[in-house]
Amino acid sequence: MPKLTFWFEFASTYSYLSAMRIEELAVKAGVEIAWKPFLLGPIFKAQGWDSSPFNLYPAKGKYMVRDIGRMAEARGLQFRLPEPFPQNGLHAARLALVGLEEGWGPEFVKGVYRAGFADGRDISEPAVLATELEVAGANAENAMARAQAPHIKEKLRANTGEAQAAGIFGAPSFTTSAGELFWGDDRLEQALVWSLR
Amino acid sequence: MPKLTFWFEFASTYSYLSAMRIEELAVKAGVEIAWKPFLLGPIFKAQGWDSSPFNLYPAKGKYMVRDIGRMAEARGLQFRLPEPFPQNGLHAARLALVGLEEGWGPEFVKGVYRAGFADGRDISEPAVLATELEVAGANAENAMARAQAPHIKEKLRANTGEAQAAGIFGAPSFTTSAGELFWGDDRLEQALVWSLR
Repeated sequence: MPKLTFWFEFASTYSYLSAMRIEELAVKAGVEIAWKPFLLGPIFKAQGWDSSPFNLYPAKGKYMVRDIGRMAEARGLQFRLPEPFPQNGLHAARLALVGLEEGWGPEFVKGVYRAGFADGRDISEPAVLATELEVAGANAENAMARAQAPHIKEKLRANTGEAQAAGIFGAPSFTTSAGELFWGDDRLEQALVWSLR
Repeated sequence: MPKLTFWFEFASTYSYLSAMRIEELAVKAGVEIAWKPFLLGPIFKAQGWDSSPFNLYPAKGKYMVRDIGRMAEARGLQFRLPEPFPQNGLHAARLALVGLEEGWGPEFVKGVYRAGFADGRDISEPAVLATELEVAGANAENAMARAQAPHIKEKLRANTGEAQAAGIFGAPSFTTSAGELFWGDDRLEQALVWSLR
């Protein structure tokens, strides 16, 4: 089955849009999705940014909120910008890696995105993450312990390094097996088509 | 007839994609297009940028070339990045304002975009602009004299100020009569739909 890698960051607003629809689109396209959490922080830092571009460039930030508001409404999703923005998605990303090993990854990822961007909750809070773990069918206590394992921490660092090496500079991004890179929720359909080539 | 304002900058690669298809889409949608050239330079400078973000952030620049290459191929367009990039579109923008008063504006705009991004020519060169003026049906000498008129220079400054006041931070952008702002060629269809609301 053709594969498309979905690079996402929990702080990323546009990644929320993709996470909520990628499974349905992938099934229709006959493409398998490889969910790949990574961190934008180190990539932004390498570009000289100490925050989200939506904070550094206020006109862009204001536009993003309206743009996603329009898209979310059209797709039947809620959207609000959490406070503070961007959220710290480190623990959520490590937990997602555990979930991707154990089978509850995608459900957890979607739950965390909903918590942050639909409900405006702080996704760095253990209580918020514990709720989403249980909703996704995981044992919260076990998952949180496993998320501290050295191989999980290393996996997230490696994903972030791989993203940078693949030329990724934002999220969501999508890469095909042939090495085609697509950036942004609005390129998801095109990325699926290219993964069939 | 509902109206959509098309904000474009001649140095902008994604504006090229929109300029080549906006007329056909607008006719189908029953929307009138107001062509509005402006300059990104002062807007980028206000954000602390002294060049195109595609130069300042090389990963983004490399991606843009591939992304537009894919889009252009799918639409039957040629695309190459001119040298140097970004081009200086000041004179082309003033000429476009003359053309929008005299009726040959859209043809000239498309010709300049093709010269820069399909043929890789330097659109700051008078000879290149003169050719595109004649192809668009204008008298090149007269148009170039008129482009130096104070009201034309002032109009371009005013457009750029209006863009900034409207929250525009990149090109292409689209604004509806109700004040909705859309950024990027991939929002053109959505902008047309919203201009009918």
